[in-house]
Amino acid sequence: MLVQQLRKVLTNNNIYSQHSIKLIACYSTNVKRTKIFESATAAVADIPDGSKILFGGFGVCGIPEKLIDALKTKGVKDITAVSNNGGVEDWGIGLLIQQKQISKMIASYVGENKELVRQYLAGELAIELTPQGTIAEKIRAGGAGIPAFFTPTGYGTLIQKGGAPIKYGNNGKVDIVSRPKPVQTFNGKDYVLEESIFADYAIIKAHKADPYGNLVFNKSARNFNAPMSRAAKTTIVEVEDIVPVGALTPSEIHIPGIYVDRIIKGENYKKRVERLRLRESDENKSKSSPGQELRERIAKRVALEFRDGMYVNLGIGMPVLSSNYIPKGMNVMLQSENGILGLGPFPTKEQVDPDLINAGKESVTVVPGASYFGSDESFAMIRGGHVDITILGAMEVSATGDLANWMIPGKLVKGMGGAMDLVAAPGTKVIITMEHNAKDGSPKILDKCTLPLTGQGIVDLIISEKAVFAVEKGVGLTLLEIAEGLSVEDLRLCTGAQFEVSPKLKKMAQIGEK
Amino acid sequence: MLVQQLRKVLTNNNIYSQHSIKLIACYSTNVKRTKIFESATAAVADIPDGSKILFGGFGVCGIPEKLIDALKTKGVKDITAVSNNGGVEDWGIGLLIQQKQISKMIASYVGENKELVRQYLAGELAIELTPQGTIAEKIRAGGAGIPAFFTPTGYGTLIQKGGAPIKYGNNGKVDIVSRPKPVQTFNGKDYVLEESIFADYAIIKAHKADPYGNLVFNKSARNFNAPMSRAAKTTIVEVEDIVPVGALTPSEIHIPGIYVDRIIKGENYKKRVERLRLRESDENKSKSSPGQELRERIAKRVALEFRDGMYVNLGIGMPVLSSNYIPKGMNVMLQSENGILGLGPFPTKEQVDPDLINAGKESVTVVPGASYFGSDESFAMIRGGHVDITILGAMEVSATGDLANWMIPGKLVKGMGGAMDLVAAPGTKVIITMEHNAKDGSPKILDKCTLPLTGQGIVDLIISEKAVFAVEKGVGLTLLEIAEGLSVEDLRLCTGAQFEVSPKLKKMAQIGEK
Repeated sequence: MLVQQLRKVLTNNNIYSQHSIKLIACYSTNVKRTKIFESATAAVADIPDGSKILFGGFGVCGIPEKLIDALKTKGVKDITAVSNNGGVEDWGIGLLIQQKQISKMIASYVGENKELVRQYLAGELAIELTPQGTIAEKIRAGGAGIPAFFTPTGYGTLIQKGGAPIKYGNNGKVDIVSRPKPVQTFNGKDYVLEESIFADYAIIKAHKADPYGNLVFNKSARNFNAPMSRAAKTTIVEVEDIVPVGALTPSEIHIPGIYVDRIIKGENYKKRVERLRLRESDENKSKSSPGQELRERIAKRVALEFRDGMYVNLGIGMPVLSSNYIPKGMNVMLQSENGILGLGPFPTKEQVDPDLINAGKESVTVVPGASYFGSDESFAMIRGGHVDITILGAMEVSATGDLANWMIPGKLVKGMGGAMDLVAAPGTKVIITMEHNAKDGSPKILDKCTLPLTGQGIVDLIISEKAVFAVEKGVGLTLLEIAEGLSVEDLRLCTGAQFEVSPKLKKMAQIGEK
Repeated sequence: MLVQQLRKVLTNNNIYSQHSIKLIACYSTNVKRTKIFESATAAVADIPDGSKILFGGFGVCGIPEKLIDALKTKGVKDITAVSNNGGVEDWGIGLLIQQKQISKMIASYVGENKELVRQYLAGELAIELTPQGTIAEKIRAGGAGIPAFFTPTGYGTLIQKGGAPIKYGNNGKVDIVSRPKPVQTFNGKDYVLEESIFADYAIIKAHKADPYGNLVFNKSARNFNAPMSRAAKTTIVEVEDIVPVGALTPSEIHIPGIYVDRIIKGENYKKRVERLRLRESDENKSKSSPGQELRERIAKRVALEFRDGMYVNLGIGMPVLSSNYIPKGMNVMLQSENGILGLGPFPTKEQVDPDLINAGKESVTVVPGASYFGSDESFAMIRGGHVDITILGAMEVSATGDLANWMIPGKLVKGMGGAMDLVAAPGTKVIITMEHNAKDGSPKILDKCTLPLTGQGIVDLIISEKAVFAVEKGVGLTLLEIAEGLSVEDLRLCTGAQFEVSPKLKKMAQIGEK
């Protein structure tokens, strides 16, 4: 990235010069370069309107807050922003959205920012919702000189078939939809072709840097900062500390300096925890309501799927509950898509670190033997089938194993986050946990999903408060267990699909029962 | 990978059982799993003949010597081995080749093992020569659930067009040649489709592990061990030390335990340095011969291309010489394809570490501010164009920028190593340094290369002892500088291609000259 850097240095940080070749030719070999800029303002001074910019962070964890402030002050407009999340209204990338500086977002999840969703539905801003693992891999590929790759993620969904709304008109109708993507079969399985992302600028946050640009991240704040650092013409990093050359050992460096062009040291970090969760003392635990009892019944059944030594990804909400029922002495390592293996319980007040959150943006801790990594590595792990079990909620599940849990057209615009990636790995067991029926009593297990799919033919097991079904992908359901007091006929009445009954049908089991 | 692991544990480490489903079904939740095996013999006990195995290491640096020994003793046959190198005759994977346990190799470089080349040319063993970065990326993709990807590496060469000899018959003729690979254009540039590699077993070496399988590597011994650990059904690791759970901090772990199935602790490591090089004291430096003077003249011209802050990859041999002429006070970071940024001088006797070598397998040191990484990261860096300049030798260069430096059909079977990747990155300046003519006086700069290509239209600059040529890729040559005492007509006589003469033609410059 030296050539770009030279252009910037030689043009006194003014906007990209057309005469770059001449400038390089007269560059003296005696000029010493430095990557350290005096301020965030100086580091972003040459970023023109219309730039494509990668923004590091997951939720508001590990965001480049000083550089975002500087971009806000400079008033750069018409930004195409690649950011996993849409921030919150008054923080992170949300500040740029508030000022209408962003014209297009590539993101996997925008559920935390109402203003962003308002602008999207009003046609003021385009959003290309992209599975989280696909964003991470597109960026990784962009940095690695790979123009395109095949992935199982999103096959059979709007992401592959096209038709996902990208931009609304001012009449409330969709103006621009996503185009279909090429598919190809390898070893009998279907994959989607995705093209890489390479941006003009990457705006990222690290914990420490040395003057050569070598970076070290703190805990789960590595996330998208790591892959993004490699995938832009100019990578600008803010850090909390600049240490001397040689202070970082060669083995602990997370990102080699070759990827980094500019460094600034930020002061007075205001890091936020999006969802502060603290460990409850036993007496403070809320008393159980009927809804909670139902959820715990599901969680206690889910816990029977765990085995010592397993690696498990638990979706936000009900799936997470099941971790409370991992038998004592059994080692189940919990994977968090934002870059953690070995999630622990919620922290005490003293343990809270804004750089350590889970995929639900909640404060967490880790267990001994845990590890941190970037979002590219996290989804390589997920997509590669290294996670034994993934457990998610659902809006609808079909008898053939289709899952819908990310979108209600025209209504719910949150994004798929990592769900499409989590269900796409052929080697991973996909367990759906959900209330058997919707709030209006309508069935959620159907012959065919009516909502846009998260994955096609990918569910292995369904666990509701009423029953446990095995799914033979592409074929149909078999009832394995049924809740006490319920007959098979009762179950047929509240289930929207046919199912076989296992000859070994049992009462629904619960962990800890004999 | 737990399911495979359970099968193995439950079948008492016997060969893969067809009844795995039943075994899993009756698996009690109370069984404690351990990844630690008592010996290398136990860890490889279930590996059947015909397995596809990934072997970590680069040359003999970071090889799993204890596990290779155990495979040799067990006598596993008909192995398809994925290994960047072919080892040496009596060490590393060479031991298995000696015993004829390997029927097929996927490798980038086999130049150090005569017995391997003998078996290959005699039709006893197949070799699929594959560019080093493509091997690394195929393995990385295999572990990451990516079945195929596009790469610029090898476009326009035998690797893409097909026809590379894979297996000879016993009559000395080629029986099996490589097939052509699909190509596709992205953003006006042509790329090759490569499919991923996923193996039955990965046999790797790390420095330390904890009982969960979290790994830390030492220096440049990370190399292929890192990506390979993620790309097999069963990953078996030997380490020098097993530390307690929690002894490795979550941020220093290079490979999370999720990828690792079995661990053994090796004793009495015999690590070898393939090419021991020591720092010479000034008085010991060999006196200059005419050949050396010529090489130094080239190196002194190359050094003029360096700028402060540049990242440079220097090929083995003459290119490396130019690092001796980096001006004092100028910071040029040298990249080594085996996973180092910031190569330093040769070590003193006391500094030698077999885990720290360069791409030429020579003992080296690193400078302050250096970093280590795996081969997947190294070639992502190279292919992604993050290296400013790559400097290589050549057998032939064409006027349109084609390069041939890896193969003489039927004669020289060494492999391309990382050369095809190094020249493939569009963002990297490719400089060829070579003697102007071959030993028999024939020209090496030609209208068209006669040898199999390393890359098509990829050379930017040619520096010989006689001249410096700029290459306009796909168009032709312009003479920029000419050696003292030589006329343009002299040069035309010893050059096998037409060239333009720059209106600013200069005497060939040397670093340090005014």
